[in-house]
Amino acid sequence: MNELTSLGASIDGQRFWDDMLDQARIGALSPRGLRRLALDDNDNQARCWLVDRGRALGCETYYDALGNVFLRREGEDPSLAPLLIGSHLDSQPSAGCYDGTLGVLAGLAVLRALHEGDIRHRRPVEVVSWTNEEGARFAPGASGSAWFAGQRDAAEILDATDDDGVRFADALADCLARLDAHTVSYRPEPFTPHAFLELHIEQGPVLESMGVPACAVTGIQGVNWYSVTLLGQANHAGTTPESARRDAFTGAHALISALREAVAEHGEAVRFTIGKFALEPNATNTIPQQATFSIDLRHPSAAVLAALDERFQRLASETWSGCSAELSTSSRVAPVDFDDDLVEIVDTSVKRYAPTAPQLVSGAFHDAIHLAHRCPTAMLFMPCRDGISHHPDEHIERADAEIAVRALADSVGTLLAR
Amino acid sequence: MNELTSLGASIDGQRFWDDMLDQARIGALSPRGLRRLALDDNDNQARCWLVDRGRALGCETYYDALGNVFLRREGEDPSLAPLLIGSHLDSQPSAGCYDGTLGVLAGLAVLRALHEGDIRHRRPVEVVSWTNEEGARFAPGASGSAWFAGQRDAAEILDATDDDGVRFADALADCLARLDAHTVSYRPEPFTPHAFLELHIEQGPVLESMGVPACAVTGIQGVNWYSVTLLGQANHAGTTPESARRDAFTGAHALISALREAVAEHGEAVRFTIGKFALEPNATNTIPQQATFSIDLRHPSAAVLAALDERFQRLASETWSGCSAELSTSSRVAPVDFDDDLVEIVDTSVKRYAPTAPQLVSGAFHDAIHLAHRCPTAMLFMPCRDGISHHPDEHIERADAEIAVRALADSVGTLLAR
Repeated sequence: MNELTSLGASIDGQRFWDDMLDQARIGALSPRGLRRLALDDNDNQARCWLVDRGRALGCETYYDALGNVFLRREGEDPSLAPLLIGSHLDSQPSAGCYDGTLGVLAGLAVLRALHEGDIRHRRPVEVVSWTNEEGARFAPGASGSAWFAGQRDAAEILDATDDDGVRFADALADCLARLDAHTVSYRPEPFTPHAFLELHIEQGPVLESMGVPACAVTGIQGVNWYSVTLLGQANHAGTTPESARRDAFTGAHALISALREAVAEHGEAVRFTIGKFALEPNATNTIPQQATFSIDLRHPSAAVLAALDERFQRLASETWSGCSAELSTSSRVAPVDFDDDLVEIVDTSVKRYAPTAPQLVSGAFHDAIHLAHRCPTAMLFMPCRDGISHHPDEHIERADAEIAVRALADSVGTLLAR
Repeated sequence: MNELTSLGASIDGQRFWDDMLDQARIGALSPRGLRRLALDDNDNQARCWLVDRGRALGCETYYDALGNVFLRREGEDPSLAPLLIGSHLDSQPSAGCYDGTLGVLAGLAVLRALHEGDIRHRRPVEVVSWTNEEGARFAPGASGSAWFAGQRDAAEILDATDDDGVRFADALADCLARLDAHTVSYRPEPFTPHAFLELHIEQGPVLESMGVPACAVTGIQGVNWYSVTLLGQANHAGTTPESARRDAFTGAHALISALREAVAEHGEAVRFTIGKFALEPNATNTIPQQATFSIDLRHPSAAVLAALDERFQRLASETWSGCSAELSTSSRVAPVDFDDDLVEIVDTSVKRYAPTAPQLVSGAFHDAIHLAHRCPTAMLFMPCRDGISHHPDEHIERADAEIAVRALADSVGTLLAR
């Protein structure tokens, strides 16, 4: 079993990187970047490319009712639940080449190491590419993984339409027909994997700033989205004394100061962002009648989110510079803690290569957030330059990527060796 | 001379109010309000109406090169510089019936009191309606008074175009032709009045809150307009820790707090308004890369404005939450102090009727701001409901208006009796 627990050593870094470059051509933007919207022609072509690569490694290939594609390397006991590795191949409209693709091709690299080393294992291994993680064409995203994990109904997903009025269901039918024509086997229903592992770029600056090539991810923070409106009274900026004003901007400024103070009590793990802000009537010499802003609040702890939620509601019920405030919740996603045992396996694997690796909580969503409700799940992160993602400037270092894939392989090997 | 110094007693309140109602029909909006844009058909009709009323009181009528209209009641010594009273008849697109019109028809009421009492005075008295005070059709406003007072060149004014591409010069030509056809005398050049008096609604809440029907105005505060931009870096709201952020909104928030503190040191007379605010890219889950906002800063003292200007520039040169700031001045109008002697005459006249009347500084601009550069100038204010103006809801109480007109008449009488 030694070759399993040190599977990372068998990873062919050159072939893995060639695969990355190959995939980057499908939907390439000029001079760089990627546009591979869910279920578009590029996305379907990427699926077929993946199927061909899987077949070359002796895998059976499958697709399910949502167009999720699976490469299956059989185990000595086919009745055992497969170990699942993967991510997604779709992208944002003007994206880089690493978000999602990295995690799928890392899985492929693991399959190659097993295949070329002719390594035996009792449990089957499958690599998956989930449909529509990005949600850029059809909102919301993570359609394939949410459905697979029983977190969202197919009917709701199929009903979504893109900006051109194309239904998800129709785009999906084309995709499935293409996979069928590519002689991929139809396996409509979800199953319960033994575990799910996903390698992804961090999409943040922490690993890069620490000079660490990979790390284990312990969970995904929860997020509450709020919309806040302050109602004051429009008036002449020159003639209205301070004492007679009900200035919605001044009210918003004061409320935001109080919200920030509340947030600061919860330490460094909290993320508080005001990304949208608008005034009415938005004229230089008119006191604003209305101010509206968004809040994006994130934290790994459901208890902290609940405490801040209650505190925000209480603050919004007060009067701010004579203005009434209204705070409404537009979205709420609970935090997810990954499986302790699996996180430890990943952490141990990572630390073979990067002894100082931290453990991070993911600030962004991933397919793993849904899989965590279905089976033991964990993730690995690797650094991306300047924390940039969803942009053609997205960049990773090949040396880091190889280490991250080896750490993933070692984690897989450790699980298979059990 | 007793009948001059108590001229206010001779004001015919009913006729004055009838005139107000009559004028309110020219450009009336349904169900209420007024639209009488500078040099449009309604505005020209209002000029002719004024000319007719003046003639009925035995006045000579004149227009000048900018379409300013004058009603002249001759004095016993026609060589003396005339005492000038007036305001404007044009309005904002969706306005009330009092802004401007009040000051012109108050002058007409004074002429009527002189005429019907057959009161003799050595110095001529003229009532004026200035062209395009509002600047709603042709920006900037106060064209007629600025030109008359030598503060703006005719060429610059004539070159302005409205939203339909109509040049000021062409609209003015129509107006002048109409006045010519109405046999109004052409007196092209400006002259130097003995003094200028203007009654106007306050457009603020102070007199109404004090329950005072009129007051003397000691000057017009100056105003600086600024545009401020903070440049940060866009990033993922979920993945970027506080310490790695350059959040343009957070920077703007901190800078605004500092600006407010600087302003607060200068007491109650300062007016500080942030009326416009915008974020880029303005998305809930993206840290703003850029924040832009306006500042409208007003104060009666040029020294205070200069001190705050210097302070604002210094604050903007600092770094705010990792963001650079840039502050540019988009407009700067110096404050004006009215003539002390004239203010005292007005104040004395007002206090006959309203012993508790304050003296106010105007927060808004008026034609008087330009006349003050040409001759001794002062203003009277009267309350308007809720401080509202530039809106069909603009409203004044007839009883207050009568008192304000009587105080104006007493001021005129006092000047004529000298």
